[in-house]
Amino acid sequence: MARKLEVGVLGATGMVGQQFALQLQDHPWFEITWLGASQRSEGKRYDEAAPWRLARPMPDALRSLIVEAAEPGRAPQIVFSGLDSSVAGQIEGAFAAAGHIVISNARNYRMDPVVPLLIPEINPEHLALLDAQAKAHGWPGRILTNPNCSTVVLSMALAPLRRFGLRRVMVTTLQAISGAGYPGVASLDILANVVPFIDGEEEKIETETKKILGCLRGTAIDPHEVVLSAQTTRVPVANGHTAMISVAFDERPSPEDVLDALRSFSGRPQQHGLPSAPAQPIVYLPERNRPQPALDVERGGGMTVSVGRLRPCPLFDYKFVALGHNTVRGAAGAAVLNAELLKAEGRLG
Amino acid sequence: MARKLEVGVLGATGMVGQQFALQLQDHPWFEITWLGASQRSEGKRYDEAAPWRLARPMPDALRSLIVEAAEPGRAPQIVFSGLDSSVAGQIEGAFAAAGHIVISNARNYRMDPVVPLLIPEINPEHLALLDAQAKAHGWPGRILTNPNCSTVVLSMALAPLRRFGLRRVMVTTLQAISGAGYPGVASLDILANVVPFIDGEEEKIETETKKILGCLRGTAIDPHEVVLSAQTTRVPVANGHTAMISVAFDERPSPEDVLDALRSFSGRPQQHGLPSAPAQPIVYLPERNRPQPALDVERGGGMTVSVGRLRPCPLFDYKFVALGHNTVRGAAGAAVLNAELLKAEGRLG
Amino acid sequence: MARKLEVGVLGATGMVGQQFALQLQDHPWFEITWLGASQRSEGKRYDEAAPWRLARPMPDALRSLIVEAAEPGRAPQIVFSGLDSSVAGQIEGAFAAAGHIVISNARNYRMDPVVPLLIPEINPEHLALLDAQAKAHGWPGRILTNPNCSTVVLSMALAPLRRFGLRRVMVTTLQAISGAGYPGVASLDILANVVPFIDGEEEKIETETKKILGCLRGTAIDPHEVVLSAQTTRVPVANGHTAMISVAFDERPSPEDVLDALRSFSGRPQQHGLPSAPAQPIVYLPERNRPQPALDVERGGGMTVSVGRLRPCPLFDYKFVALGHNTVRGAAGAAVLNAELLKAEGRLG
Amino acid sequence: MARKLEVGVLGATGMVGQQFALQLQDHPWFEITWLGASQRSEGKRYDEAAPWRLARPMPDALRSLIVEAAEPGRAPQIVFSGLDSSVAGQIEGAFAAAGHIVISNARNYRMDPVVPLLIPEINPEHLALLDAQAKAHGWPGRILTNPNCSTVVLSMALAPLRRFGLRRVMVTTLQAISGAGYPGVASLDILANVVPFIDGEEEKIETETKKILGCLRGTAIDPHEVVLSAQTTRVPVANGHTAMISVAFDERPSPEDVLDALRSFSGRPQQHGLPSAPAQPIVYLPERNRPQPALDVERGGGMTVSVGRLRPCPLFDYKFVALGHNTVRGAAGAAVLNAELLKAEGRLG
Repeated sequence: MARKLEVGVLGATGMVGQQFALQLQDHPWFEITWLGASQRSEGKRYDEAAPWRLARPMPDALRSLIVEAAEPGRAPQIVFSGLDSSVAGQIEGAFAAAGHIVISNARNYRMDPVVPLLIPEINPEHLALLDAQAKAHGWPGRILTNPNCSTVVLSMALAPLRRFGLRRVMVTTLQAISGAGYPGVASLDILANVVPFIDGEEEKIETETKKILGCLRGTAIDPHEVVLSAQTTRVPVANGHTAMISVAFDERPSPEDVLDALRSFSGRPQQHGLPSAPAQPIVYLPERNRPQPALDVERGGGMTVSVGRLRPCPLFDYKFVALGHNTVRGAAGAAVLNAELLKAEGRLG
Repeated sequence: MARKLEVGVLGATGMVGQQFALQLQDHPWFEITWLGASQRSEGKRYDEAAPWRLARPMPDALRSLIVEAAEPGRAPQIVFSGLDSSVAGQIEGAFAAAGHIVISNARNYRMDPVVPLLIPEINPEHLALLDAQAKAHGWPGRILTNPNCSTVVLSMALAPLRRFGLRRVMVTTLQAISGAGYPGVASLDILANVVPFIDGEEEKIETETKKILGCLRGTAIDPHEVVLSAQTTRVPVANGHTAMISVAFDERPSPEDVLDALRSFSGRPQQHGLPSAPAQPIVYLPERNRPQPALDVERGGGMTVSVGRLRPCPLFDYKFVALGHNTVRGAAGAAVLNAELLKAEGRLG
Repeated sequence: MARKLEVGVLGATGMVGQQFALQLQDHPWFEITWLGASQRSEGKRYDEAAPWRLARPMPDALRSLIVEAAEPGRAPQIVFSGLDSSVAGQIEGAFAAAGHIVISNARNYRMDPVVPLLIPEINPEHLALLDAQAKAHGWPGRILTNPNCSTVVLSMALAPLRRFGLRRVMVTTLQAISGAGYPGVASLDILANVVPFIDGEEEKIETETKKILGCLRGTAIDPHEVVLSAQTTRVPVANGHTAMISVAFDERPSPEDVLDALRSFSGRPQQHGLPSAPAQPIVYLPERNRPQPALDVERGGGMTVSVGRLRPCPLFDYKFVALGHNTVRGAAGAAVLNAELLKAEGRLG
Repeated sequence: MARKLEVGVLGATGMVGQQFALQLQDHPWFEITWLGASQRSEGKRYDEAAPWRLARPMPDALRSLIVEAAEPGRAPQIVFSGLDSSVAGQIEGAFAAAGHIVISNARNYRMDPVVPLLIPEINPEHLALLDAQAKAHGWPGRILTNPNCSTVVLSMALAPLRRFGLRRVMVTTLQAISGAGYPGVASLDILANVVPFIDGEEEKIETETKKILGCLRGTAIDPHEVVLSAQTTRVPVANGHTAMISVAFDERPSPEDVLDALRSFSGRPQQHGLPSAPAQPIVYLPERNRPQPALDVERGGGMTVSVGRLRPCPLFDYKFVALGHNTVRGAAGAAVLNAELLKAEGRLG
């Protein structure tokens, strides 16, 4: 077998960085050989620098790797970024300027007109934006982003329905605490409680979704015309964002058409057989009380979005429930799938 | 001081019955002198019959009261009903036929055209239906109902906004486990989980709200023309139903007008100074992450509905969050306030 | 490869029965071909009869299997029993009388003098009791049991320390809700709460442990002389029983000796390479705040017991913490490992 | 009515400081007129400086009070201290040196030989240490401390049993998240989890308890001879520390004697009728599954310790369960009761 591609992880000691470490463990194509983090961690072994908080243990291969500064110098060409948005803008830009391909989970470049906001099943053609990036930013490298965790869940559930003419989407999310990183949400704030506010989240859903579902015209994305309104809440769930969705179409399809669209949804990752691609990107659950985080979040290795409770909406056309794994399909798994698509399409050298 | 009115509690050993016991403890007007329950409890002391599950202890005055059969015979004229809907229809009807005034929390008679579905701050004029009851049902007694727990929270938040012409309401609720009684929700179903389904709840919200906000025309209620669409979820919260609401009006009011309508909302209970009436039926919280069950549910002794996060909705006119105590304002407290209004308006003999 | 042995599951629709279904999925030696349950389920497909409550979905191979009556007639020779103790005594006896080998998780026969209470790493020689069973009970079949879920965790942690002369053990457990079956613990009882009582649990720990650690003398077990005192609590954790243990020895070993005993612990399942045997039955975690259910319960596929925080006890010799998966190592996995040992030792025909 | 004594609160913006604000609201003897905190809060209004996290709202009287530096200058003579232990040693010493009476909840001076570690029902005679303080420390003021939150619960349950000759105490605690302050425990660490470690907590229980139960000899405390061994865990409970206790006596009393000792326990606060004193410092609950945080923590306004499940211990004499409110009886309420005792005994000028 061919040697694996060496990759780095920016923000390696944070929660998303840790998820990258797991997501890339035993990956058939990629191998982590470099870890970058803030000065506090620089020079330490990874197992001393990272406050490991995940249920699966730290990969042995990474334990003794020495964490380096988050600077381009010695990093491999491909780097995954789990950086906090407070520093991601500057550092990811520096890596792109130094010729790296940055597969980022941070929000900083998501809405940049020449940066793809990619969900490989939905908008693989947006990769064409990469060709315009060099010119627009004057850097030899590239930046590729995945959406915000709750946006992924919603977008996956909406994408198969584009064919019916998406017009209006009202959504309320019930989001897991792991979406806020570590230490993140204080237990006193969320134990047996609901917090009906997540900073900036509703705006992200309302804008990112339109770009994701948008059309590539030349070297730009025409945002989808759908209008969205989101309310977001934090609930005492470890993993899994639930979205309660109402949707209005240009023309109301039959329930069978909607179900068929959801169930038959598939895309480039499935065609390529990408390592992280779930066999079914969307599973429809017929039980009346599903999907539920405790029962459904691990479906497809956390890469499948579960949908249920399709029924008529007295105000719009249909309402239904969607659930996805916020740190897998909504973060580290999303970025790895993006990198896999790049490679499968010959864009990783 | 005048002697208190003797009252009974139907379904006294269940969760709602227990809440009645607390809600009526040291009540200035009413005194529980009779407890009725199913055959299993008949003849037992209350403290032996009721599996007490509330944080405040059982009132001493009730401990040794002997539970009787749920039959009209020896019960006082006024009875509160916390009966399960599987038996409430038959038993409450029997009590009304025997001349009792039944203040019910059960759903069975809520949508009966001659039974008021009362929230005293909102539709006190609906009490006029009582006069038509005798004729329609041919019984000397009366039945008066309060709405479903999540409907109360929503209706309270909407009532002050009627003046702007309510057109469309989209709501997603996050409901506490105490709303399902005891044993109710299994812990394996809800610990660190969300269940996006509550049997019959969405229908209740969509229909009861229209009756509550409806107009009395002669001896009938014209349902309000607003169209509602509800999605309901169960979350791991002990007490307090949260509602994420989007609302469209005939004419869009200014945010100041909406805030003013909410804050100045008041009604007959406040005018009468009813014992269970909160000084402010609605409190608007300006903090960006409120209301929260853990912090706000006990406001006004559990009788105040908290509202927050008023902001424009990209699809409708406004979105906001409402929270209310499901077993107080949404159940036992609601029924007691109904009884107090009856008395204050001279309808309790 | 040889054909798999056909096995049945008694109490197939209950929580333990469902766990058997998962634990035996794709098992290299056993294949479920028969499901027995109560009359309510008889004649139904398994996917209609069982209220599936586990995170991994029901095995496809079992979905359409028709549930039969819990009677010996058509069942295969080997049956796993997840029956409730209210019926297990009678039914398991009937199966043994009809010549079946019953691998039971129920408590009814655990303390029977001729029934092994088996943990394969600890007391495989107790299988010799099986030879005395026919005579004592006059049945051609056999019954083999595994301990109560919290007892397994404790016994596993104590077994390696027998060499130092176990004298006294004080233990407080913090037990997961899945140990109580489904619906089991009501959410109102356990959400953000602790219940310091589990019916019968302390007695089971105090007696079963002595039998498990006991010595086979001829055809009887001499209970171990250790004296135990247990306090048991229920906590809002899904899976994983935690035990806080203090232990006094005949002679105080050094900490190194204790650690070495724990880490090097191994037994017949590891020697045989049984399919369900974890490579390490016990893992010692050096971090000061481990083991934790959320991080450690899945270790070794749920068959490894995690130990941590070994330190001197001011009253006894040492105190430490142990954690094990209550439905895997403490129930279905325990029974399957028992069956595997039977087979490996030539006791399954 | 006499004017109230003016008091200050050190560390006013922290969690314990906020609890002092509530505990002293409408207090008949004391009135907060001064708030001291770190530089970050200096000069701000209290409602802007304090990130309020309690279920009861901030007292209106304090909202506009300006927070000052934590320096003696303008503070009233009596100050309550909710300072973090990282700064409490230095600041509380400075206040005592400047002539203030410091009623502290911090741990820094608890084990100082001339500082009382007071629980007014248990060791009011330890106040005599105050007379030795001036000489030992050379300061005109005084420092008075209350114990660590879990120690209070245990000590209260043990104090009535001193008469039987306490010899050995084994205890495992299940402690609420509010004991760790705010933000304190990360939700990812504790949601549906148990953490079997609290830094320094076991040592505090094992040493503070001996001082609290100790004898005053001249101007020093002879620690009680009881030997304690503690294991401490954090559980997902908001308020209320549960302690699972086994105790050995010089001579084993009858169960009736133990129950009688617990139930009749009373002390100087009850004799004086102190405002914060519960009528019954200890309540024994006969139900087999009590006490529970969700049902019992608010007993006596949070100042009563609930005990239950008294039964023989196979290793020691008895085992039982105790529960107390960690932020009331275990922190702010404890300090206020200490101050009330000072005043009632004429030690507040």
